[in-house]
Order: sequence, then structure tokens, then C-alpha cells
Amino acid sequence: MKEISVGLIGFGTIGAGVVKLLEDNRELIAGRLGARLNLKKIADLDITTPRVVAVRKEMLTTNVEEILKDPGIEIVIELMGGYEPARSFLLEAMRHKKQVVTANKALLATHGDEIFRTAEAEGVNIGFEASVGGTIPIIKTLRESLTGNGIKSIFGIMNGTANFILTKMSDEGKPFDVVLKEAQSLGFAEADPTFDIEGIDTAHKLAIVLSLAYGKRVNLKDIYREGISGISRLDIEFARELNYRIKLLAIAIARGDSVEARIHPTMIPLDNLLANVNSNYNAFHIVGDASGSIFLYGQGAGMMPTASAVVGDLTDISRQLLKGVSGCVPARALREDLIQNIALMPQEDMVTSYYFRFSAVDRPGVLSRISGILGTNNISIAAVIQKGRKESGAVPVVITTYKSREKDVRNALQEIDKLDVVLDKTVVIRIEDDKL
Amino acid sequence: MKEISVGLIGFGTIGAGVVKLLEDNRELIAGRLGARLNLKKIADLDITTPRVVAVRKEMLTTNVEEILKDPGIEIVIELMGGYEPARSFLLEAMRHKKQVVTANKALLATHGDEIFRTAEAEGVNIGFEASVGGTIPIIKTLRESLTGNGIKSIFGIMNGTANFILTKMSDEGKPFDVVLKEAQSLGFAEADPTFDIEGIDTAHKLAIVLSLAYGKRVNLKDIYREGISGISRLDIEFARELNYRIKLLAIAIARGDSVEARIHPTMIPLDNLLANVNSNYNAFHIVGDASGSIFLYGQGAGMMPTASAVVGDLTDISRQLLKGVSGCVPARALREDLIQNIALMPQEDMVTSYYFRFSAVDRPGVLSRISGILGTNNISIAAVIQKGRKESGAVPVVITTYKSREKDVRNALQEIDKLDVVLDKTVVIRIEDDKL
Repeated sequence: MKEISVGLIGFGTIGAGVVKLLEDNRELIAGRLGARLNLKKIADLDITTPRVVAVRKEMLTTNVEEILKDPGIEIVIELMGGYEPARSFLLEAMRHKKQVVTANKALLATHGDEIFRTAEAEGVNIGFEASVGGTIPIIKTLRESLTGNGIKSIFGIMNGTANFILTKMSDEGKPFDVVLKEAQSLGFAEADPTFDIEGIDTAHKLAIVLSLAYGKRVNLKDIYREGISGISRLDIEFARELNYRIKLLAIAIARGDSVEARIHPTMIPLDNLLANVNSNYNAFHIVGDASGSIFLYGQGAGMMPTASAVVGDLTDISRQLLKGVSGCVPARALREDLIQNIALMPQEDMVTSYYFRFSAVDRPGVLSRISGILGTNNISIAAVIQKGRKESGAVPVVITTYKSREKDVRNALQEIDKLDVVLDKTVVIRIEDDKL
Repeated sequence: MKEISVGLIGFGTIGAGVVKLLEDNRELIAGRLGARLNLKKIADLDITTPRVVAVRKEMLTTNVEEILKDPGIEIVIELMGGYEPARSFLLEAMRHKKQVVTANKALLATHGDEIFRTAEAEGVNIGFEASVGGTIPIIKTLRESLTGNGIKSIFGIMNGTANFILTKMSDEGKPFDVVLKEAQSLGFAEADPTFDIEGIDTAHKLAIVLSLAYGKRVNLKDIYREGISGISRLDIEFARELNYRIKLLAIAIARGDSVEARIHPTMIPLDNLLANVNSNYNAFHIVGDASGSIFLYGQGAGMMPTASAVVGDLTDISRQLLKGVSGCVPARALREDLIQNIALMPQEDMVTSYYFRFSAVDRPGVLSRISGILGTNNISIAAVIQKGRKESGAVPVVITTYKSREKDVRNALQEIDKLDVVLDKTVVIRIEDDKL
């Protein structure tokens, strides 16, 4: 049987998972491929700590050049993460006409343009299924299955840590800080959780998804982004009362030639499939103009699920190599000369429904003053919850709205938060009521 | 820009949808492909009735040979359905070294071996994403994404008509016959609904899925199959009381070297994602040994969703043709010499939980006699619902069980149905309690 030699850069959790999977399902993979994947070399700074899988000593090296310069290695897997030297390694591998596979979303979201262009220029494949949604075939679905569709919208839960925390807050009624600590002790959140809970990791993934769906380059900082650290127990309770569940959603909606892209905690109806994506699972709801709704769900991270995605990429690439070709699928699913820069829709023009929680003085006339300001700013009220309970002098007044413009909302809240009867900054959570 | 010529056999609903989609999203598809798909010829017996999309008269023919023998046509799409002459046309197209795309699940489920072998022998691609799950990328996920995984199980809702009927029965409390008539008048069910409601269409799809997941040939008649025409309002009500929803599931579970394959109405917990797949939607829950749970959801039929899947196949094939190759992905995701016949697990050895509804005389001691027989047949009771209501002399006694062997269940029911206190044949519905 033919052999295809593979080099691996980065022998951390995911890297070890890939080695283990290639080992565990060796015969199955060879049968499906019609060739053997021969893992020839693994480069890592740490080649002494034992991993979940044992490898022969000769396979390990601390010198990446032994992979990049080995003419026998046809595919290079980069699983070290971070920007540098990962970027340089990937670029060098491609310049040596090697096929590459990576799970590095941060790198692709920031240096994707350079990396994808290089892949096209060198005529090599770049597999990055593992970079978004872990084991979920979201990249393949966008690059290959939905090629006949204009993409109307994508709603996704793209970060397992944030989803784990929100699920536990909703199910167990615990506050954010407590749940974060639990997630950290369970290994679901990192010591510095900023990337996950502030939506930065989600933004990286959304940027990649946007580039495939719309064939556009996205500037990360143009994506509206809000994390989950401000979600309180009170809002989770009100969400339940309103038959919603709060999820950190990444949202992309085609608006003519522009795209609305935003990441924020979102209230979604209980009967929406996304509301039922719990714990550390990820999911994507894509609407194509021909396909209609497609919903994909699975483990967005973790050793073996991510390894599964990497091996899927290895198979795709190897099946091409066995036919003597590469680069069948354009890196960004579109001819490179058609890729455009995109000006995302200005945040002030975004339109959605809103949940406001006002901290108001418990006094007659307050509701009338608040709702009056909303009205003069073109914001229509959908529901109101006001109860007589007192908490440190203020009562929560909850108002949900019909679709409103972000600009109007900002203007209204600026006015409302200045009222003497409003004691604290108003809490704003967006609502997506559209049915799945 | 390069052009790839395509011939279409079958200008019915789906055929017209494909023509419309190639027209509507012409520029988008050309950009993603880097080539133009040129629909050169359409063959159908009826070339006069207007379709949703207008085509030039010269494109239409009643003579399929004009497509099969045209050396300029590189890809042939077969959307006529049925066994013959669809089978002969596909085989002839492949023998002329044409790439083929089909949505013909009945044909692939019964003559797949001949068709897939021919594709491999001729070195051409066969695309059949549209044959199972409509727009859902289930074929691609199994053939390409999960190649690193042993497949532990697949649970699917694969027939939109049956799901539409069960959803309406559950939501509106109407009996089967009434809902079936509604489905027929809405165009969701055919005049002769046998294929859909008796699980035959689902069996075709499961056979295709099994061949991809396990690289095995399946004999259709070995798949245990039960339709939905026996589901009564009473069972739907009891299901709700037990926090279940009834769905027509296709189930494949790896059991060592064998595979358990069955299709039957199934009670599943309300918090299982499959329980929330409603109306005419389809869904698949796949568990891979590395990936864990993957859940895919979308429109399983319909003009444009199915056309979307066909265009996805056209893109895959064209991207290979543009590189001068074909047949990158093995037809059945496995080297043909490794494809095996499969003896599915004997039905009597199947293990699952059960719901029984006994029609018993309302008399003391009945429950004790029934439960006694269950006990002596190794069937453990999970729950009992017995109410004092009388319906034509009999009262319904509902018993759910823990996991039991089909053989034990059949023996027990044979005994119970002979009891003088049992007035009617016991209703049996299987339960799948495993969490998604």
C-alpha cells in the first residue's frame, strides 16, 4: 500500500490526540484512504514529558526544520497554536510545497489573508476544519456543500467554555464567578479565561466563517463583541420567566452588499434548537437561500473530537495526493481574485430585539418616564415585567422590545440612565426571536 | 473562464430546481468553482409542460442518448427516479467516463453494489448527497469528515413525510388518518403513501448510510422495519405523559463485528435534540469513537434544498475535473476490495427499552398476571400507568421497561396476548432513552 508521510508540529493535547487516533484506527483509516498515513516526525519544545500515547524516541525532535526541510514529508500539521512561530512555520511549509493542516483559529483570523493566499499561490491544500467548531464539519459544509447557496445568515455557539458557564448558571442558578471557578477546576476554562468569556475566541471563529460564507476579508475589530462576564443571576431568572435561554451567539446576517456581524449574549426562545445546545457543545445554524435551515452540532473542542477533524483534513488532502493533485478546493471557497475586503455593517445600524433591565426607584410614574423615552426613540415595547420587590433601594423593571435600531437604543439609554429615578446603568441583552 | 458541460436526465421538481439554482446563483457558483457550469442538455419524456424555470427549446430532448453519447458532456445528473431505466442510464454514463450525480435512493439501496463498483472501475465520481437527508451533508460527513472514526451509532429521522405526520399528531391531537389526508392535500405525502409511512424510504436511506459508515453491503430485507400507521392518539398521549415524543427513527448501532439496524416508531426523551426535529425536517445523530456526538439537521426533501445538495456534488466533481482528475473520494468511502457483505444482527438479539400498552379487562389481579409474565421473561419494569377509565370494556395498562431482549419481549407478549383478561393485541413501541 502507498504511504504518505506526515510531520506534526506541536505535541500538546490535540497533537497527542491526533497521534493516538492515527494509531487507534490505523487499519480503518488506511482502508478508507487506500494508503497509509505514516507519521514520520513530531516537533515540540518538550519531548520528554509522557503523553497519552507512546511514540518512538527517534520520531521526536525539538528542531522544526527536520520537518520543514524533509523532502519526504508531504503533509505538515501545525498544532502549536499562537501567532509566531506558527505563522512562519506554516508559510515555510507551504513554500516547500507541503500540504498543511492547522487548528489555529487565532492565526487564521488575524493572518488568514497571507496564509490563504500563500496556499493558493503554491497550489497546496490548507485544511483547517479543526479551527472552528472542533469536530463539527462547518468548514467543509461552507466550502463544499453549500457552494450553490447565497448564505442568508449564520447563528453559532462557537465557544464551549462560555456555553458551559452559561448552561451551569441557567441550570443551577449559580453566579458567574462561582461557575467560572468550577469550569477552571474541571479544565473547561483556562487560568486566564479572557479569550473565551469576552468573546475573543468566538470572534476569531466568526471571522473565519465570514470569510468562507461571503468570500470576504474581515477586520476583527469591526465585529461587534460583548462577553458574558456581565450576565447576572437576575437576568438568567428573567430570561426563564420570558421563556428564553441566554447563549453567547456569534451572528452573521447578509444585508444586501454588507454583512451584519456581532457577538453578544443573546436571549433565544426555548424551542429554538440553539437554546438546547448545552454544556461545552458548539452548534451552527446556517440559512442558505436554497438549502434553507441547516443545523450542525458537536464537540467544539477537546482532544479526540478535534483530532477527528484533523484526521478528516488529512484524508481529504491524501485522497488528492494519491491522484497526483492538490488544491482542489479553493482555500476560501472562492477564486482568490474575487475575495474582497468587507466593510461590516456599522454597529449603529444593527437591528434586533432587546431586553432591558432598569434599576429603578420604586415610585409611581417611573415606568411612564422610561417608556416615554423609548417611544420617542422609535422603540416599541413587547413586554414589561415590574414587581414590587425591593433590592437595595432599587427595583428591577424589565422591558423587552420589538425590532429596534441599535442607534435608537443607545440614544434612549443615554437619556434613561441620566434619570434621577434610575439608579444604575441599564442592563442590555439582545433577543433573537426568529424561529430556527 | 473554463466551462464544464453538464447533462440532466429528469426535468421534474428537483430537476427544475437544479436548473433554477444554476441560473439564480450563476455568478456565485462560477466564482466558487473558478469555472462555469454549462447545462447543455435536459432529457425528459415531457418537454412541453412549463416548469418553474424557463429553458431554451434546443436544450430539451426526449432522447437520453443525446446526453449519454455527447462527448462534450462531462457530468450527468440523474433525477428521474425509479429503478429502470435510471439504472441503465447511470451505468452507461459511467462507461462513457462521465461523472454522475444522482438523488436516487431506491436505486442505490437496491443496485448500489453494481453502481458503486462501476464508478470505481471507471474511475469516475458518483455524487449522491441528495439521496439521503436532502440538503443535510450526511454523505459528505460520513465519506470525508469522519474517516478517522469508528462509527458507534447513527440515529436518524430520514423521512420528512412520516415526521410531518407524527409532529401534527403530537401537536394537534389528531388521529393518523386525518393527518395523512392533510399531508396529502398539502403535498407532503403522495397519493400512495406506503413508501413513506411504512418506513421503506427510510430503509433505503439507512442502507446507504450503513454502507458508508461500515463499508458493508446491506440486504434491505435484513433491516427490521415498522411503519407509523399503527400509532394511535392514545399512544401519543401516553408518550407525552411519560415525557417522550414519538419519532420514526432509523437506528444503526455497532455491536462488535455486527451491526444492529432497525426502523420503527420510537419514544425519545423530550430533551433529546431528535425529539425537537419537527414538521418535515430530517436529522442525524452520529456518534464516532473520536468525534463523539455529531448532530446534523435540515430539509430532507423539497425542490431547492435538494437542488442545493446536487449543486454541492457538482462543485466537488468539477473541482476535481479542473485539476484533471476524478474519483478522489472512494464511492463507498472505503477501498472497494475491503467492502464486505454484512449479516445484520438477528432481530431477536436486539436490545432496547419498551413501551407496552395492554388492553386489559378492568379487574383485580390483571396487573399482577401481566407483570408476572414479564418477570419470568427477564423483562424489568421501569414504570406503570394504570387508570380507571373504561373504553369499550377494556382499560389501557401502560408499562415501560428497562433494556430487554427482543426475543424475551416476543415470548412474553405471545403469552400475555393469550390471557383471557387481555382483550386486544398489545401495542409495542420501542424507547431509546440514551442521551444525545
